[in-house]
Amino acid sequence: MNIESVFKYIDQNIDNHIVKVQELIRQPSISPQDIGVRDCAELLRKSLKELGCQRAELIETSGNPVVVGELDVGAKKTVLAYMMYDTQPIDDPGWSVPPLEAKLVDLDPFGQVLMARGATNSKGPLQGFLNACDAIQKAGEKLPVNLLFAIEGEEELGSRHFPEFLKKEENTVKKADYVFFPFMSQDPTGKVMNYLGVKGIVYVELEVDGKTWGYGPTEFDIHGGTKCVVDNPAWRLTQALSSMTTPDGNRVIIDGFYDDVKPISAEDEELLTQLEETYDEETFKAPLKIERFIDDGHGREILEKYIFGPTLNINGIWSGYTGPGTKTVVPWKATAKVDVRLVPNMQVKDVIPMLRRHLDSQGFPEVKIIELESGYGWAKLSISHPLAQAVLETYKEFNYPIESWPLLSGSAPFSMFAQEPFNLPFVVAGLGHGARAHSPDEYIVIDEGGPTGGLATAEKSFVSMLSRLSQIK
Amino acid sequence: MNIESVFKYIDQNIDNHIVKVQELIRQPSISPQDIGVRDCAELLRKSLKELGCQRAELIETSGNPVVVGELDVGAKKTVLAYMMYDTQPIDDPGWSVPPLEAKLVDLDPFGQVLMARGATNSKGPLQGFLNACDAIQKAGEKLPVNLLFAIEGEEELGSRHFPEFLKKEENTVKKADYVFFPFMSQDPTGKVMNYLGVKGIVYVELEVDGKTWGYGPTEFDIHGGTKCVVDNPAWRLTQALSSMTTPDGNRVIIDGFYDDVKPISAEDEELLTQLEETYDEETFKAPLKIERFIDDGHGREILEKYIFGPTLNINGIWSGYTGPGTKTVVPWKATAKVDVRLVPNMQVKDVIPMLRRHLDSQGFPEVKIIELESGYGWAKLSISHPLAQAVLETYKEFNYPIESWPLLSGSAPFSMFAQEPFNLPFVVAGLGHGARAHSPDEYIVIDEGGPTGGLATAEKSFVSMLSRLSQIK
Repeated sequence: MNIESVFKYIDQNIDNHIVKVQELIRQPSISPQDIGVRDCAELLRKSLKELGCQRAELIETSGNPVVVGELDVGAKKTVLAYMMYDTQPIDDPGWSVPPLEAKLVDLDPFGQVLMARGATNSKGPLQGFLNACDAIQKAGEKLPVNLLFAIEGEEELGSRHFPEFLKKEENTVKKADYVFFPFMSQDPTGKVMNYLGVKGIVYVELEVDGKTWGYGPTEFDIHGGTKCVVDNPAWRLTQALSSMTTPDGNRVIIDGFYDDVKPISAEDEELLTQLEETYDEETFKAPLKIERFIDDGHGREILEKYIFGPTLNINGIWSGYTGPGTKTVVPWKATAKVDVRLVPNMQVKDVIPMLRRHLDSQGFPEVKIIELESGYGWAKLSISHPLAQAVLETYKEFNYPIESWPLLSGSAPFSMFAQEPFNLPFVVAGLGHGARAHSPDEYIVIDEGGPTGGLATAEKSFVSMLSRLSQIK
Repeated sequence: MNIESVFKYIDQNIDNHIVKVQELIRQPSISPQDIGVRDCAELLRKSLKELGCQRAELIETSGNPVVVGELDVGAKKTVLAYMMYDTQPIDDPGWSVPPLEAKLVDLDPFGQVLMARGATNSKGPLQGFLNACDAIQKAGEKLPVNLLFAIEGEEELGSRHFPEFLKKEENTVKKADYVFFPFMSQDPTGKVMNYLGVKGIVYVELEVDGKTWGYGPTEFDIHGGTKCVVDNPAWRLTQALSSMTTPDGNRVIIDGFYDDVKPISAEDEELLTQLEETYDEETFKAPLKIERFIDDGHGREILEKYIFGPTLNINGIWSGYTGPGTKTVVPWKATAKVDVRLVPNMQVKDVIPMLRRHLDSQGFPEVKIIELESGYGWAKLSISHPLAQAVLETYKEFNYPIESWPLLSGSAPFSMFAQEPFNLPFVVAGLGHGARAHSPDEYIVIDEGGPTGGLATAEKSFVSMLSRLSQIK
């Protein structure tokens, strides 16, 4: 493959590639609210067909379909691109642009960015990867690897039905040598954040309702004056939640929560030491508008928490009257959305029983645990693995500084590939920069003039990586 | 006054009286959401004018106007009717009728009831009282007392600007000998609940936001994966709330909370003993759909809590993502609506400083206390007072069983009349039955065939009471 000619093709066609990203974003696919999901899957199936896939299908599951594609070019190696086409909702206040218009706006210091829900998480990288594969072929070159695509529509729902897909398509997935997750890894300064793994997640609702409980109001909110003789589900939920952490809400005091957390390995200690030197905390804080970390911590303390810290988080809580002014009621129901992030060697299967035991032993048997996701475990690759090394070589080629992180604090279902029956190594890789996933004004950088790579650089990095992956011995 | 001819007039004109109640209800006046409030005040001003008031005005305050009326008939005694024209919102789910249509529906065992927001709290009793005053005059009789009307539009907002009215109209209010609050006092079995007082209330929002705090997300919800290094306002609020009560949410453990609670007096002990014999707990539970009281309590234990128990209640709580499915965020803000109910001799002015001291001493200085109401104190009349005795005599005349309660567990701003410079005794009185205030399917009974009095009986009881009040020595 003549990489230079592919790069040239990308530069010459970048405007069209931007339009492709915009088209994908403008097709809503908000899985938590079931908006536009299947239409988006169909759009992608067509894209895979146009890319030359011999097979491009929607694989049905009990939930949203997985878009699968096979592009066999008779190469020695086969790379499975795992991606997701679903996004978070758009109802969060604070957007400065309509969240689904995929507008190009100026954002200092990047130049033009594409600002929209799904821009970085993850339709931008997804379409960027498809554009890269397309560019190789349109430039008259041959793809260096066979490609498998598995693009799921429930990543924001915890990939709850992805195991069904893996079972149905077990023999397809087994054709892969590596799993590749296209990602824009650069931070706002241009530094590459090389994530070697992800945390696992279990997401539940904790709920107290008077009907199930047999105490408190059982069907509707009642007059607040009755509190003196009637139990309040909001108090019980609040108390139950509070029993789970220290008063600052930061250390989990559920029995056994940290028992399986693996001590930091020698390899990771070394990475931590390197990180301590290069990590810029202001760059992390700025896009999130964070003034201080927990306990006003800095440096290694925060890095250890960020990389190796399991968490119990309240994503949302609601009960009773939440409108303007005053209304006095004893609510009949109270609900919290809570997730647990898992680090090595915590196990998904232990989480809900641990929560149940805690609630029961603390005197809160009335708190129901509603499983919203089946959850999945953490996954982690050693930096010495040839796959990790191939990615590092690509980054070096582009002359950006690199930081290698043992784990990303977010979650993705890589453990499903990393475990039996596949045992497939995976990488999260690519240049380019995006931010504010799950927040308003989510964006990816388009222009090349700023501190980070733009869309073209991202696509070129994918091309380079596919080339290097084909050469692994 | 020939009472029999007034009663006859009421019976003959009850259909028209029902229509008057419906007209008042169909004019929305939802003060917590500022819907229709002033239009309702104007409607009532016209009613007072039609009733023959020499003066009928809207008295402006910093909030909603108070409708004031003076009907001087040259009698020896003057009764001030304190009433309210505002209602709770109608957005609670569970209504089986449109909440503002004021439909007449059959409800076992009462026969026809009028089901609507405001039916019992308190446009039904309000219009019933106006109908009664009108009937006396239309029947050709002379009102036995001079009437003053003070109908406020912010009772559901904690009567926050009523003190302004009292100051402006101090000399008007001072003309009164008694304060009368028209109420439908019968329980569903027809028994009269004779309430001799009300609890006080202070209503606040407790809130943690990252911007003010300087920790956690400061402007918008951010990705939940950052919990490992970022504080979560929802955890802090949850923990702060939990620090205020025992794990069951029922006993307040804020330092000094119960210090000023007065021991039960000999008179009240006697009333409690009587109540213990006649009080029917199922009748209390049925309309509220309550299966069990706190700790599965019964009898005197529950009566003492209900009458003399101060409370700290969570009326509502909200933070972060509360939609369907899963979204992982660290919320930037968390809010709870909390009220304290005061019993003798607790003081309004002590409540917020007590909450502040507690939060500060427990390590939650970041929890803001937002005062939604200025609040007001408890108020209580002795059963031996001539006013209380006059009311009791009326109830006996109608042959319904009577239960005298030292305090109602709800709140009303009678303390504003009971204290300096007025020192006015007040009663909450009247026959008839209504229920589900602050809940869906609020109603008052219209028909006379069931266990309770209907609208006509309520109106007749108001006529009788005015007559007896005129005769107090």
